[in-house]
Amino acid sequence: MSKVAFIGLGVMGYPMAGHIAKRGHDVTVFNRTAAKAAKWVAEFGGQHAPTPAEAAKGADFVFSCVGNDNDLREVTTAPDGAFGALKPGAIFIDNTTDSADVARELHAAAKAHGAHFLDAPVSGGQAGAENGTLTVMVGGDADAFASAEPVIASFARAVRHMGPAGAGQLTKMVNQLCIAGVVQGLAEGIHFAQKAGLDVAAVIDTISKGAAQSWQMENRSKTMDAGQFDFGFAVDWMRKDLAICLDEARKNGAHLPLAALVDQFYSEVQAMGGKRWDTSSLIARLNRK
Amino acid sequence: MSKVAFIGLGVMGYPMAGHIAKRGHDVTVFNRTAAKAAKWVAEFGGQHAPTPAEAAKGADFVFSCVGNDNDLREVTTAPDGAFGALKPGAIFIDNTTDSADVARELHAAAKAHGAHFLDAPVSGGQAGAENGTLTVMVGGDADAFASAEPVIASFARAVRHMGPAGAGQLTKMVNQLCIAGVVQGLAEGIHFAQKAGLDVAAVIDTISKGAAQSWQMENRSKTMDAGQFDFGFAVDWMRKDLAICLDEARKNGAHLPLAALVDQFYSEVQAMGGKRWDTSSLIARLNRK
Repeated sequence: MSKVAFIGLGVMGYPMAGHIAKRGHDVTVFNRTAAKAAKWVAEFGGQHAPTPAEAAKGADFVFSCVGNDNDLREVTTAPDGAFGALKPGAIFIDNTTDSADVARELHAAAKAHGAHFLDAPVSGGQAGAENGTLTVMVGGDADAFASAEPVIASFARAVRHMGPAGAGQLTKMVNQLCIAGVVQGLAEGIHFAQKAGLDVAAVIDTISKGAAQSWQMENRSKTMDAGQFDFGFAVDWMRKDLAICLDEARKNGAHLPLAALVDQFYSEVQAMGGKRWDTSSLIARLNRK
Repeated sequence: MSKVAFIGLGVMGYPMAGHIAKRGHDVTVFNRTAAKAAKWVAEFGGQHAPTPAEAAKGADFVFSCVGNDNDLREVTTAPDGAFGALKPGAIFIDNTTDSADVARELHAAAKAHGAHFLDAPVSGGQAGAENGTLTVMVGGDADAFASAEPVIASFARAVRHMGPAGAGQLTKMVNQLCIAGVVQGLAEGIHFAQKAGLDVAAVIDTISKGAAQSWQMENRSKTMDAGQFDFGFAVDWMRKDLAICLDEARKNGAHLPLAALVDQFYSEVQAMGGKRWDTSSLIARLNRK
C-alpha cells in the first residue's frame, strides 16, 4: 500500500479520494475549506493537512481535483504548493479538466523537482466518481503512468495512457466537443418534436435504434422534454471546458464553428439563470418565451 | 397473401420491393427507367407495369419510394398516377422522405378516392433496405396502419405508428436534426484530435464508453479519420431533408440554428465536389486546405 495525498474534495474529489482510501492506501487530504477535509477524515480515516505542501510531504502519489488552471497552479507551484514538498520520484496526478498548456508546464516543473506529473482528467460525472467507475484519460511519461495506474484504478472503470504530457487534457477536449454537437442536435430535435405536436417519448424510442442514437439521447431526452436540468455537469463548467477547447484550437489551427456557437448558446442559458443547470439545458434556450 | 404495387426501384425501393415479394405477395412494380423494373421482375418474379396507374390497378397495398414531394405527386395525383386507379379501401404507403404537407395533402386526396394514405419514411439506409431491417415511422389513420403493418414489416425491424397524417415525416425530421448535431460535433472532435496529434482511434475507443458516445461515433469515426465518405446516405439527400426540416420549422415556429448552419456547411461540401459523399464528410470541410 502507498502513501497518497489528495488535494481538492469537491463533488468529484471527495468520493474519488474515498475510493483510494477504501483500497487500503494511507491518504492525507487537503481542502481549501478545512471542515470538508475533517468530514472526509471522519468518514474514510487517514488525516488532513493545513496546506498542499504538508499533504504532499512523503507521499508516493499526490492527486489533485480542483477548478481550473489557476487553482491548479495555486496547489502546486505557489508557496505552500505541493511541488516544493514532493519527494524524489513522487508522481503528481491531476484529475482536473484544465488546459494542455498547464499540463505541459507542470510536467516540466515536476521534472525540475525530480518528480513526475500526469494530466489525468476524468469523464463519467458525479455518479461515476461516487461509484468508482470513471474513465481516466492520461497524458505523461509511460513509466510514471505504469506506476500510477493501479492507484488511479481505485476510482475508475478505465484508465488509458493517451500520449505525452497534455494528451489526457486534449482527449477530454475531444470528448466535450462531441458532446456539444450531440446535445445541441438533440435539443433541436426534441424542441422540433414538441412544436410539431409529436409524442416525444415515442419518437425517441423509435429513432434511438438507428443512426441518430447517442448516450445523451438515451439518458437525457426524457428530462430535456420535461425541462429538468439537475443532472450534475453544470453549464458553467461546460463553458470553462469549451473555452479550453477554443483556446487550444487557436494554437493548433482547428476549426470549431459548432463549439463556438454552442458556447455562445450556453452564455444565453447562463443569462437565463442556468449557470448550475446541466448541459442538456440548451433546450431551455430554444423553448424560452 | 395480397396484391401489392411498388413504385420506385431506387437503391432503397429495389430491395424493399424484393422483400415484399419474398414474403409471397403478388408484386407489380413501376419504375421510371423500365429496364430496372424488368431486371427486378427477372430477380423476384411478379410483373412490371408501364405507368403507376397500371401498377396500382386492383392492388390492396401500393408502396412508393421516390425522390421528393414533386416526384411523389407525379406518381400519385398526376395523370397516369396511382390515385386514379386505387380500388376502394386500398392503402397507399409512401416510404419517401418528404414534407409533412404533402403527406397531409395526399392523405386527403386518397380519402376522396375512397382509399387510405400512410406517410411511412424509413431509416436504416441502403444496408437496412437490403437486409430488411429498416425502421419505419408511420403517420395516418390507425386502422389503415393496422392493415398495412404486416406488409410493411416485410422489410422492417420496427414499424411504429407515430400519429395522424404527417407524423411519420415529422418523426423522420427529428431523426435528421439529431444526426446533424451528432455528425458536426464528431467531425469537430476528430478534426481537433488530428490537429492535436492524438491517436484518433485510441481517443475514440476511450471516449465512446461515456457521455460522448453515439452510433455515428461507433460506426463512422474510423472512416471520418481516414477521409472515406462512401457509406450510402449522400450529402445531396441530407440537404433535401434539412430543407424539409427548415421549411416545417418556418411553419411550426421551431428554432433550428444548428440545423441551418450544418445545412450551409453541407452546401460547402457540395461545392467541394461532395454531393455524393456520405453525411460524415462534414469533416472534409474542416480539413480542406
